Amino acid sequence: MPKTRGLFITFEGGEGAGKSTQIRHLADRLSRRGFEVLVTREPGGSSGAEAVRHVLLSGAAQSYGTGMEALLFAAARNDHVRHVIRPALERGTMVLCDRFMDSSRVYQGVSGELSADFLGHLERVAIDGTPPDLTIILDIPAAAGLARAQARAIAAGVETPDRYERENIAVHETRRQAFLDIANREPQRCRVIDATRDESTIAGDVMAAVTPLLADYPSAESGAEGGETEGVS
Amino acid sequence: MPKTRGLFITFEGGEGAGKSTQIRHLADRLSRRGFEVLVTREPGGSSGAEAVRHVLLSGAAQSYGTGMEALLFAAARNDHVRHVIRPALERGTMVLCDRFMDSSRVYQGVSGELSADFLGHLERVAIDGTPPDLTIILDIPAAAGLARAQARAIAAGVETPDRYERENIAVHETRRQAFLDIANREPQRCRVIDATRDESTIAGDVMAAVTPLLADYPSAESGAEGGETEGVS
Repeated sequence: MPKTRGLFITFEGGEGAGKSTQIRHLADRLSRRGFEVLVTREPGGSSGAEAVRHVLLSGAAQSYGTGMEALLFAAARNDHVRHVIRPALERGTMVLCDRFMDSSRVYQGVSGELSADFLGHLERVAIDGTPPDLTIILDIPAAAGLARAQARAIAAGVETPDRYERENIAVHETRRQAFLDIANREPQRCRVIDATRDESTIAGDVMAAVTPLLADYPSAESGAEGGETEGVS
Repeated sequence: MPKTRGLFITFEGGEGAGKSTQIRHLADRLSRRGFEVLVTREPGGSSGAEAVRHVLLSGAAQSYGTGMEALLFAAARNDHVRHVIRPALERGTMVLCDRFMDSSRVYQGVSGELSADFLGHLERVAIDGTPPDLTIILDIPAAAGLARAQARAIAAGVETPDRYERENIAVHETRRQAFLDIANREPQRCRVIDATRDESTIAGDVMAAVTPLLADYPSAESGAEGGETEGVS
């Protein structure tokens, strides 16, 4: 029997890895195949999560320590899962999310201030029985990613030198390694894709990672673009 | 070797069971024996928890559903544990807390909207490795407890008929049974005490439940009241 629940695909990786660009490419390809697609992001993505995001960005939570901050992130994720992600999946929509639980594992786990036990239980609470079906980890050396993010910010007229000086390359490399470690531990769920290459090559690799999961779905409901060649390598 | 860490004792039970009265009695008795005592309560008890409590009482969280609300309660509890309860215990202080994790089990569990798995992980996160050493469950039939709470409110000049009409006796009886079920499952940690009797009889029973746990502590550091008879039955 063909699947009716949508696929939940998350994108992870450091600064400048091209997550939002690649999500856009994948959303286009899936839409052209006739799937409903929802693009969302964390933190935020639902009204409750946005409310918590506001508290997090205000810095109010920071003064209460990493435990409170981690719990508020979890509250935001739980709200996002319950009110946006899961209802969409149940309607058969493909959900593409920019950052999800692996970002918490990496950013909160690397700090070393919270125990693995604490973080493990918190993750279970946050995702509430809805883990990603596939996680694309866009991998790029920290220096290259930061340079790319900075060039983009400058092109957009945003002055952000402080942001990139504040955390040094070594911290970003540690996070990069933490993402790769997750992929090694969960090869069924995670695909690491070399994000140093050109945009369309990466998009092809992302689609190649997604394609096997589409086998159980009825092919292209909107037949119009059914036969289209998408140039996937 | 005598213990140096303090005892963590929580008080649970429905409306009008006399929790705050009995906490006051126990605090007096422990103080007279030379122990440092901290009396605290939930929700609240630390600055971070009070901030979350404010959000909870404002009703802002309610509109986001039971998951968000449960997570915010957990965030408040985690902050309370990290910043108030655990530091006090580590100083050797006896911590008496009015409501703790069992109230969440009962109030959130009975609603049936959150899975036992979700609530179990959330509890682990909230208490963060600091469960109570002893939990006193003050047991009283719902009708008697509510009548007592109402009489007290009227005596204090507080008009609260709505509050007691809003939730009926049956709901309170369900919660009462849920507290008794916890005690049956965890007899090592929990003591059920009949709270329909007079104040000093109950206080005697509470002290009798605490006494065995004091055996490992050096006796009365402040010798002055060391020989005092406390009238414990």
